[in-house]
Amino acid sequence: MSDPIRIGLLGRGTVGGAFAELVEARAAAIEAATERRPEISGVLTRSGGDFGEILAGSDLIVELIGGTEPARDYVLEALRAGVPVVTANKQLLAQHGEELFSVAREAGVQLRFEAAVAGVIPIVRVIQESFGVTEIAKVFGIVNGTTNFILTEMATGGAPYEEVLARAQELGYAEADPTADVSGADAAAKMAILARLAFHTPVTLDEVSFEGIEQVQLDDLEYAKELGLSLKLLGVAERIDGGISVRVFPCFLYGGHPLAPVAGPFNAVMVEAPEITEVTMSGPGAGGVQTASAVLGDVVSILSGDAPVHETRERLPIVSDVTSSFYLYLAVADRPGVLAKVAQVLGDEDVSVKSVVQRGSGDDTRLVMVIHKCLESRFAAALKAIEGLGVLRTPARAIRVIEEEFV
Amino acid sequence: MSDPIRIGLLGRGTVGGAFAELVEARAAAIEAATERRPEISGVLTRSGGDFGEILAGSDLIVELIGGTEPARDYVLEALRAGVPVVTANKQLLAQHGEELFSVAREAGVQLRFEAAVAGVIPIVRVIQESFGVTEIAKVFGIVNGTTNFILTEMATGGAPYEEVLARAQELGYAEADPTADVSGADAAAKMAILARLAFHTPVTLDEVSFEGIEQVQLDDLEYAKELGLSLKLLGVAERIDGGISVRVFPCFLYGGHPLAPVAGPFNAVMVEAPEITEVTMSGPGAGGVQTASAVLGDVVSILSGDAPVHETRERLPIVSDVTSSFYLYLAVADRPGVLAKVAQVLGDEDVSVKSVVQRGSGDDTRLVMVIHKCLESRFAAALKAIEGLGVLRTPARAIRVIEEEFV
Repeated sequence: MSDPIRIGLLGRGTVGGAFAELVEARAAAIEAATERRPEISGVLTRSGGDFGEILAGSDLIVELIGGTEPARDYVLEALRAGVPVVTANKQLLAQHGEELFSVAREAGVQLRFEAAVAGVIPIVRVIQESFGVTEIAKVFGIVNGTTNFILTEMATGGAPYEEVLARAQELGYAEADPTADVSGADAAAKMAILARLAFHTPVTLDEVSFEGIEQVQLDDLEYAKELGLSLKLLGVAERIDGGISVRVFPCFLYGGHPLAPVAGPFNAVMVEAPEITEVTMSGPGAGGVQTASAVLGDVVSILSGDAPVHETRERLPIVSDVTSSFYLYLAVADRPGVLAKVAQVLGDEDVSVKSVVQRGSGDDTRLVMVIHKCLESRFAAALKAIEGLGVLRTPARAIRVIEEEFV
Repeated sequence: MSDPIRIGLLGRGTVGGAFAELVEARAAAIEAATERRPEISGVLTRSGGDFGEILAGSDLIVELIGGTEPARDYVLEALRAGVPVVTANKQLLAQHGEELFSVAREAGVQLRFEAAVAGVIPIVRVIQESFGVTEIAKVFGIVNGTTNFILTEMATGGAPYEEVLARAQELGYAEADPTADVSGADAAAKMAILARLAFHTPVTLDEVSFEGIEQVQLDDLEYAKELGLSLKLLGVAERIDGGISVRVFPCFLYGGHPLAPVAGPFNAVMVEAPEITEVTMSGPGAGGVQTASAVLGDVVSILSGDAPVHETRERLPIVSDVTSSFYLYLAVADRPGVLAKVAQVLGDEDVSVKSVVQRGSGDDTRLVMVIHKCLESRFAAALKAIEGLGVLRTPARAIRVIEEEFV
């Protein structure tokens, strides 16, 4: 058995704790993908651990302290020592990215930071690797979940900004001091990083102009609704006239826009280029385990050298009988008791009806139903029994339905 | 200067031609990212070229012939010779994936195939690399653009299946023989590939059950609309009870579902896992240059070893004055001619009004406008002039608007 891969962990807050747990839970999969067993070789916390010792005993450093100092020193020291680094630290990247990139290049080691932007959405990887030589025209989207939660709540619940902000703080979606989020500063740091990656040009944080959502009035949202508009805090980085513009501002979107339905604490990013048209990616913008998962993806990429080997790890059987919801169309004879008979047959097979509408009358009577999730074999048996009742004028038509309504 | 990277191209149809053009157009960016200049070293077409010669003179093979033979022989021969391969061939992967993966592993060379599934959406890379050690519970989505175009047209235009299919054929969205698309067979091949990647288990094409859209009735779509449902051809691969299920079937979705707004020839794929919640990716499902762009992303990944080096390639200036649309709220005095005065001032700055509504009366009169795209400096000047009119009861409120309505 080969040596374990020793991961030095800096910081053990929400994300750090979730990361350590995830490494343990996924140890077998990591070993299958990288041929080395992972272990946390040391943890630096506010109260314990020595960075020098941890670095000396690690093959890879995961930086989850946040803030620029001492995170910057630690990351630089690791890179100079030839130890690859994974970080979720957006301020560090936005403020010191060029310095870190340059040191990483000189040392020939990897620096990865997927979790720094848009949580679990793999936008950093996609821009760098899938679209690495694409002439990207524009990257834009919703990169702050706190403000999107607040704007969604204001629009749907009709409560004013201060009230919704207080609720967001109670739910843990907003911090006690929400300034960085609601002012647009957090989104500005993320857009500086994305613009740097998309356009291969240095972008400093003070070149990103930003406005926040503190001034948004409830009645603007009401008028906007009448006009078919919804409000988002957008980050936009785009090429204009041989230069670029990187900005964060509240913005109304028409209903058909791909970002319009992105609600609550979710993030979403769109990439536009002539040769790809547009690609949209959405998902949770934060969360301990979600962010930890993005960090782990970077760790595995460094360990595996990113060339997928496609070994099978399992041999899973195909399950033939699954559960589904159904739409069911029945053209029936208009006789008393037909619905009761149909309902009886469905009940006999433990198939339950979510909703039913009856349309037409006489020779044009139709029952249209939505059936709750049930084993497909039971539904098929019920359908056969209904056909045996002799009440159908045409064959029954069934189409599956996804019952969950997403928010 | 280092040696050029010699790319052997098999097939020069729509995608092959677009790929050759894209390599030329992006040569400088490819050289910046990989430190080697790309060149097409040979092209195999139906009427010309010799595979053996092309292979001997290439560092990398791009297979865009389609179909399983002779594509399979060529890819196997290249891999065995230690030459990495990029392919867009879904049938080849779905039917012979395990054989190809195994030969690639033995030879220690890369085989990449982003363009085989969901066009320009980088779902293969994201599943393999970002979520390579994630315990994926479910991968599902719209992976056939032809059927999504047909279903969208039926639902919005109210025309029956045969009529819409004929239109899709005229527009080039459906082939002369549409069977592979409308039967669900094409989607089944893509789902076999995605299931293999997501679950690390062998999946053969005959284990994927599929139904198509040939039987969809227009009146089902009408009833469904009343129920708030829209119809999609879904591919679903999921873990169930220690096994997996991989299926393709038409399915109704409720309005709030992330896949419900995906319209026309677009594709979209969702990945679900406890540690990531869900990530949704959407974009064009096909198209010559779009597919070629996905192929090129794979080529660059192989050449660069996928470790981003973050060198800047440009130094772009920040553009300070950009164009935007605006929502404009004005609480005005209810005097004759106020709207005319405001309109005059806007016109003086070449700022044009898209829509305006007047609300309230007397001391509660408000004008709410949407302003067409204009230079922000002109809008700011107009706003200042409006404030100078002495007709505002409260400060004006302006919020940017994205004017485009996407389909």
